[in-house]
Amino acid sequence: MYTAIGYAAQSPTAPLAPMKFERRSPRADDVAIEILYCGVCHSDIHQARNEWGIAVYPLMPGHEIVGKVTAVGANVTRHKVGDVVGVGCMVDSCRECEACHADLEQYCYQGMTQTYASPDRVSGGHTMGGYSNSIVVQEHFVLRIPAGLDLASAAPILCAGITTYSPLKHHGVKAGDKVGVLGMGGLGHMGIKFAKAMGAEVTLFTRSASKAEEARRQGADHVIVSTDAEQMAAAAGRFHFLLDTIPVQHDLNPYLSTLRFDGVHILVGLVEPIDPPVHAANLIMGRRALAGSLIGGIAETQEVLDFCAEHNISCDIEMLDIRQINEAYSRMIAGDVKYRFVIDMATLKA
Amino acid sequence: MYTAIGYAAQSPTAPLAPMKFERRSPRADDVAIEILYCGVCHSDIHQARNEWGIAVYPLMPGHEIVGKVTAVGANVTRHKVGDVVGVGCMVDSCRECEACHADLEQYCYQGMTQTYASPDRVSGGHTMGGYSNSIVVQEHFVLRIPAGLDLASAAPILCAGITTYSPLKHHGVKAGDKVGVLGMGGLGHMGIKFAKAMGAEVTLFTRSASKAEEARRQGADHVIVSTDAEQMAAAAGRFHFLLDTIPVQHDLNPYLSTLRFDGVHILVGLVEPIDPPVHAANLIMGRRALAGSLIGGIAETQEVLDFCAEHNISCDIEMLDIRQINEAYSRMIAGDVKYRFVIDMATLKA
Repeated sequence: MYTAIGYAAQSPTAPLAPMKFERRSPRADDVAIEILYCGVCHSDIHQARNEWGIAVYPLMPGHEIVGKVTAVGANVTRHKVGDVVGVGCMVDSCRECEACHADLEQYCYQGMTQTYASPDRVSGGHTMGGYSNSIVVQEHFVLRIPAGLDLASAAPILCAGITTYSPLKHHGVKAGDKVGVLGMGGLGHMGIKFAKAMGAEVTLFTRSASKAEEARRQGADHVIVSTDAEQMAAAAGRFHFLLDTIPVQHDLNPYLSTLRFDGVHILVGLVEPIDPPVHAANLIMGRRALAGSLIGGIAETQEVLDFCAEHNISCDIEMLDIRQINEAYSRMIAGDVKYRFVIDMATLKA
Repeated sequence: MYTAIGYAAQSPTAPLAPMKFERRSPRADDVAIEILYCGVCHSDIHQARNEWGIAVYPLMPGHEIVGKVTAVGANVTRHKVGDVVGVGCMVDSCRECEACHADLEQYCYQGMTQTYASPDRVSGGHTMGGYSNSIVVQEHFVLRIPAGLDLASAAPILCAGITTYSPLKHHGVKAGDKVGVLGMGGLGHMGIKFAKAMGAEVTLFTRSASKAEEARRQGADHVIVSTDAEQMAAAAGRFHFLLDTIPVQHDLNPYLSTLRFDGVHILVGLVEPIDPPVHAANLIMGRRALAGSLIGGIAETQEVLDFCAEHNISCDIEMLDIRQINEAYSRMIAGDVKYRFVIDMATLKA
């Protein structure tokens, strides 16, 4: 065991504040990492404030981690001291079920161990995330950060990136497909970049006509203002895929109508009941599907990192001093960030 | 033009009654058919009573038609006088759009012409269905009834059959897959037969424990009583596919939980808002999908007829004297039919 430091919430109503705690000494298959950068995901706020009702305290968020290997266990073969590595939303799973064998550890039958606020299946207690100067993770769950990626802007690839890349890949988006992206936040702007890099014709759906120019800068070919009934009607039957990153309840029916036959509406942002309800006729007519997707497996997370290096894709970030984390949360709730805060962990020592 | 006779509703509140009307003389690509049998679908009732708000009167239902060719137009090559043929839910489409070119005429961009109560894209007026002694249909929309099928029990394959066969085929049900069928009416009992013939392990979900024996007779390997929370919980994560034939609003969430990762819940019976709403987490967790499906294309309707002949599958029917059609509707609404009424059209002459 050794002492680490990080920012944690002690209760649903407490601001994040510095805290000393113990990290385990690396076991035989563990990698110890000095954290350099950690992205700030909106789910960090939900969890810190127990908005999903599953929080455990002290709660130290952070699952978009980039750092440098400082030690490895005796059996570790894939990483060595000095390597630049990443850790995303998972740090363990059963490794034995059908899902784990299919490289879909996020759907582990026993439940994945999330990077923070999740029961630790070996040590007991619960996991502490990446708003910290260090972390110790089983090598299977540690990713290589390929050369050429900017380290800070690579961090959000580990959650915002894989969350949008995985379903586009899984559903077979290919050159010429028409892909609509709903919402242009941390997830949405990455979705635009990935769909474009896969050769798709990309349309952003947004409530704000003012975002059109910025959407085109991100790679969108077209913009549809979703509150404009005429624009929505004109898009009827157009899209092969919709990547829906909107994190709050919204009416899916007008969007479903923009799908062509066999089109798929993919939810990655919503974790609430779908209200107003979907009309079954919008699925039956055109043999459409409404699908969900959760992050991605470890192999695919490595794939998206390599894809980003190859296609020169990174997340647009604003660097953050960890001492400003509570103000950053307020700004995120107000939608005031383009597109992801990334904590510069050097500020933890300052 | 020649005079035909059939049973039609003159208004949403009128019972079906005999009516003389005109059928067109066969055009060059038309097939004229003497109708021998016509299945009675629940949508016939919805339409006759204008429960979907799109009825036109006089409304003559019937889209599960089996008969004998009595005349063909000059350009007809696929059918000849004396052939036993079928007509399902469609009698025309644009034949030029992407959907039509993909053999998915049911998703025609211009809208398919349904067999009854649908605007006729050539003659004007609206189409009159199969509760009649004859019909004239473009040859592309006329199916061959393969030798070996009982003609009366083949009729419902043209709607109940294709509606359940098509999504199982489209989603790739294969030997060893675990398929759940929700509901055991006209559609559900066909779904059980098809899934079984495709090699799947089949489970019926039903509210009535009393249906267990009958479900096994139809081919189901297991029965789950959907109102038994313990049985539902025990099935968590088990199924590759759910074929949902329930025609009224119901809570999909407990069923979605029985899907394994990548599982698909297929709606074929519901044409209303999905209420209570689906919880998005039930789709995101396990990368599940909620899909719809509407009948099937003409090529696939021929395929299911041939599949039925090959696998000795037919619909369980109760033969009906057309003069009892209004009583039959009352019995269908009460759920008192196993599993499909088929009109013996000889009773129309009697």
